[in-house]
Amino acid sequence: MVLAAGGADPTLEEAEVAFGQPDIAQAMACPRLKFIELSSAGYTRYDRGDFRTNMQGRGVAVTNASQVFADPCAQHVLAQMLALERNLPVQLRNQDGPREWRYLEDRFTNGTLTRRRVLLLGYGAIGRRLAALLQPFGTQVSAYRRTPGAEAGVTMVDAAGLPAALAAADHVVNILPDSPATTGWMSAARFAQMKPGARFYNIGRGTTVDQPALIAALISGQVGAAYLDVMDPEPLPPTHPLWSAPNCFITCHIGGGTRDQDENLAAHFLANLAAFGRGGTLTDRIM
Amino acid sequence: MVLAAGGADPTLEEAEVAFGQPDIAQAMACPRLKFIELSSAGYTRYDRGDFRTNMQGRGVAVTNASQVFADPCAQHVLAQMLALERNLPVQLRNQDGPREWRYLEDRFTNGTLTRRRVLLLGYGAIGRRLAALLQPFGTQVSAYRRTPGAEAGVTMVDAAGLPAALAAADHVVNILPDSPATTGWMSAARFAQMKPGARFYNIGRGTTVDQPALIAALISGQVGAAYLDVMDPEPLPPTHPLWSAPNCFITCHIGGGTRDQDENLAAHFLANLAAFGRGGTLTDRIM
Repeated sequence: MVLAAGGADPTLEEAEVAFGQPDIAQAMACPRLKFIELSSAGYTRYDRGDFRTNMQGRGVAVTNASQVFADPCAQHVLAQMLALERNLPVQLRNQDGPREWRYLEDRFTNGTLTRRRVLLLGYGAIGRRLAALLQPFGTQVSAYRRTPGAEAGVTMVDAAGLPAALAAADHVVNILPDSPATTGWMSAARFAQMKPGARFYNIGRGTTVDQPALIAALISGQVGAAYLDVMDPEPLPPTHPLWSAPNCFITCHIGGGTRDQDENLAAHFLANLAAFGRGGTLTDRIM
Repeated sequence: MVLAAGGADPTLEEAEVAFGQPDIAQAMACPRLKFIELSSAGYTRYDRGDFRTNMQGRGVAVTNASQVFADPCAQHVLAQMLALERNLPVQLRNQDGPREWRYLEDRFTNGTLTRRRVLLLGYGAIGRRLAALLQPFGTQVSAYRRTPGAEAGVTMVDAAGLPAALAAADHVVNILPDSPATTGWMSAARFAQMKPGARFYNIGRGTTVDQPALIAALISGQVGAAYLDVMDPEPLPPTHPLWSAPNCFITCHIGGGTRDQDENLAAHFLANLAAFGRGGTLTDRIM
């Protein structure tokens, strides 16, 4: 989630600590500021050279709220993975439609996640949480990121290993952030590298997927099913072809949300504020 | 799954080992029989005094195939629990309907399983597997069974503790087997003991639920939602009121199934056959 940019706030002039989505120009000019916590996981708007240089030059710590959104996001994509394995969408459509006894049709096409290969594209807070949730299933989890490093229980993949990892995965989970380097990252060429019939999920940002290429891959069957929580644009217009692409399932960017999000954001900020006060390590520090 | 009863099979007369769903009268009369593996998890048809006495008296070992069905059953009910928490049914109905951008409506009514209380009714192979899958979510799992015993990570509940356990649970998962003692076990009185708005799942047997009482509890909102994989009768007729009860979701007894069920049944039997041959311990022994 990246909240809409607000305007300048006169109270920020006096502030040493800011929590929310402060105006960038004003934040760079505030003389007393020492710590900013952004109330979101995404921070595209703040991820620019002048802001970063200004914050680092003045020793202003900047955190986001990744961990507040990582747990529901991971549970959201796991819900999608299990729903597809267990034929829940086709069973719901049967209940809303003919109410046939779809026993033979769906019982023996059902799958499980047991021993399945899962490839995570991007490996931050959401990926770590998803890998932890998948652990008792006995899945084989790989993760691609630009700067690989060892992680217990997860096979890290670099750019050279990516084609083989895409070809091996039963489930490809895209958690890439939005940036100039990731625009259209899941391209026609990368969809073609996937195992035929494998499933694709996007819980990151809509811009990282070449959507016409995804629709073509769904029509051809190269991608067996897709479950998207993020699209480009959002809101997705009712006439957009993603809504009706075969085996394409849409949720409306609800992955990071929970009923208790505000309490969780407040708790995250207060814990970081306490750590800041005692000179401790901040959670989810980005600058 | 309890397969339909077949007829007598002449090859059984000579057999020392039987795998499948042997005819009961014939099995009791076969002189050479030493080991029967039933190719199902349910075994209501075989669970009678004369058969049990006959098998035990002659030293015939009887196993079922619980473990083959326990893993997919546990993943099935977890899929249902997560689908409800993450608003997947309402999002699918939106996709099949108006294609609105249901962001505010569903993002901030979403939940997670984190720190939720889950009560399992019955605690055998499926319950153990579900408890293992739930472990990294940080849920609090309790389990009711007639003969409680210690289990790591699970709070066992006896009959005296049941009302309090029902009142505390956010998710009540019914895995009770079919027997005279469990007919209508989830009664109007027990639904009334549940926390208002909590969710109910049935992955055991349809006969263990008083279905008119469940429908009344769904209409009143006492039960927030139900996800049933088993009903009474099966197939559930298209006109049955369960299909259209509010917040009631039906899957057609597909919980234990997988694409690779036959391979898994064969592997389970062969492992038990090898153990039988060397006098080892049989998996899923029931008599």
